Amino acid sequence: MINKDTQLCMSLAGRPGNFGTRFHNYLYRKLGLNFIYKAFTTQDIEHAVKGVRALGIRGCAVSMPFKESCIPFLDELSPSARAIESVNTIVNEQGHLKAYNTDYIAIEKLIAKYLTHKQASVIVHGSGGMAKAVVAAFKHAGFENLQIYARNPHSGGYLADLYAYSYIDKLDNLQADILVNVTPIGMAGAKEADELSFPAEMVEQAHTLFDVVALPVETPLIKRARELNKQVISGAEVAVLQALEQFELYTHVRPDDALVAEAAAYARG
Amino acid sequence: MINKDTQLCMSLAGRPGNFGTRFHNYLYRKLGLNFIYKAFTTQDIEHAVKGVRALGIRGCAVSMPFKESCIPFLDELSPSARAIESVNTIVNEQGHLKAYNTDYIAIEKLIAKYLTHKQASVIVHGSGGMAKAVVAAFKHAGFENLQIYARNPHSGGYLADLYAYSYIDKLDNLQADILVNVTPIGMAGAKEADELSFPAEMVEQAHTLFDVVALPVETPLIKRARELNKQVISGAEVAVLQALEQFELYTHVRPDDALVAEAAAYARG
Repeated sequence: MINKDTQLCMSLAGRPGNFGTRFHNYLYRKLGLNFIYKAFTTQDIEHAVKGVRALGIRGCAVSMPFKESCIPFLDELSPSARAIESVNTIVNEQGHLKAYNTDYIAIEKLIAKYLTHKQASVIVHGSGGMAKAVVAAFKHAGFENLQIYARNPHSGGYLADLYAYSYIDKLDNLQADILVNVTPIGMAGAKEADELSFPAEMVEQAHTLFDVVALPVETPLIKRARELNKQVISGAEVAVLQALEQFELYTHVRPDDALVAEAAAYARG
Repeated sequence: MINKDTQLCMSLAGRPGNFGTRFHNYLYRKLGLNFIYKAFTTQDIEHAVKGVRALGIRGCAVSMPFKESCIPFLDELSPSARAIESVNTIVNEQGHLKAYNTDYIAIEKLIAKYLTHKQASVIVHGSGGMAKAVVAAFKHAGFENLQIYARNPHSGGYLADLYAYSYIDKLDNLQADILVNVTPIGMAGAKEADELSFPAEMVEQAHTLFDVVALPVETPLIKRARELNKQVISGAEVAVLQALEQFELYTHVRPDDALVAEAAAYARG
């Protein structure tokens, strides 16, 4: 039961979802932490962020379209937020708002865990905010051989230049060891929900398929990769790991893997 | 369980208590309303109020020391807040912040319920914010014969002038039909916790004793009045009625008396 000492964590999103609310509240309850979590939206990011500070709200997840627009109202960007000039997590330390990007942290950790061969070739499909996190994480992990493929040559070329990689506007006759999808292709509800984000032959030739799409858990790309017995990094794994990083930043508690899996299953259901 | 559609109500106080949090959350749960309630404090009333608007927080109770200082940041004062230029409740109607004073509303309703004889004489002891609500409510109910007794002649005289009543600096040899205590005398933890706020003879001569102190429920004044079989209006009754008025403003639901009594007992415990 909530009391005056209960700490509030929250999210700010253009279209709030239920995943974070269910994930965090499930863990608070299981771990007996005096916290609650609730999703918000706003038309006024400035006063929403200033309200977080003024009300002593402990933590705030930040989603589209506020990841960059919140920055002027924060006190400090941690390296993960500075790395991509994008914030998805605000921690309120007694009125001092410190920002993080746990998507970046999660991708960095997954690369370190699964992709130890830094000479591998990488093709990243996509050039939005999440693609920036992916490309930056590969860069900082020491991968030199990376190409960015995107339909939009402006954002694709810009992202490639930013990290001194090359932009490509076709996938014809290409192959790479690691293929990363950072587009909505394969996402539930997207118009290309049933499609692969790379040509079938490229998927067959790769050794690792990394899909940032989290819903469904088994995207067409992930399914195909499993059939081919490839190494897989799924968007569901990214989504859970980034939420877990937030959880630890807010509460200083890191639940074990089994409990995290339980919370993630509950949050999706 | 909290989800993205759950509405948040809250309080802002210099020293947050548990009564409101427990009262509202108990009723939400019993009535199956998708609301949560939490107490906050702030060092920055401007951005706390602007945060309420920006975050779409449904309602906000306001306590000391913010009842006047919040006013510049609100959109509209309802008659109850205008009556005493003091706000204890903010309702957020899609970004439009409308302010109320449910202490005033509660006192107005209790006067209408219990004190139908408007020719009765009244002495109010106290000259703070709550005394203003009491005096204004008696004025608007049509009581003409009211005197304000207060140790501080400045605030006492000011309050008397404001409502065209008289200020008195002694209670010697006075009597009145209705005695109202709006000081901390009799309050748990106050240095005069065990005292009566009026001389014993005045209590014996009165027909109604009205104590605004809510904790303990049975103050020395209320206890003595019950022994003497006087009509009693207790601070506990004011506290519960004002909280109920807030509850209805936030949720548009008015629980029945039995459930309210249950919630109040839970909230005190």
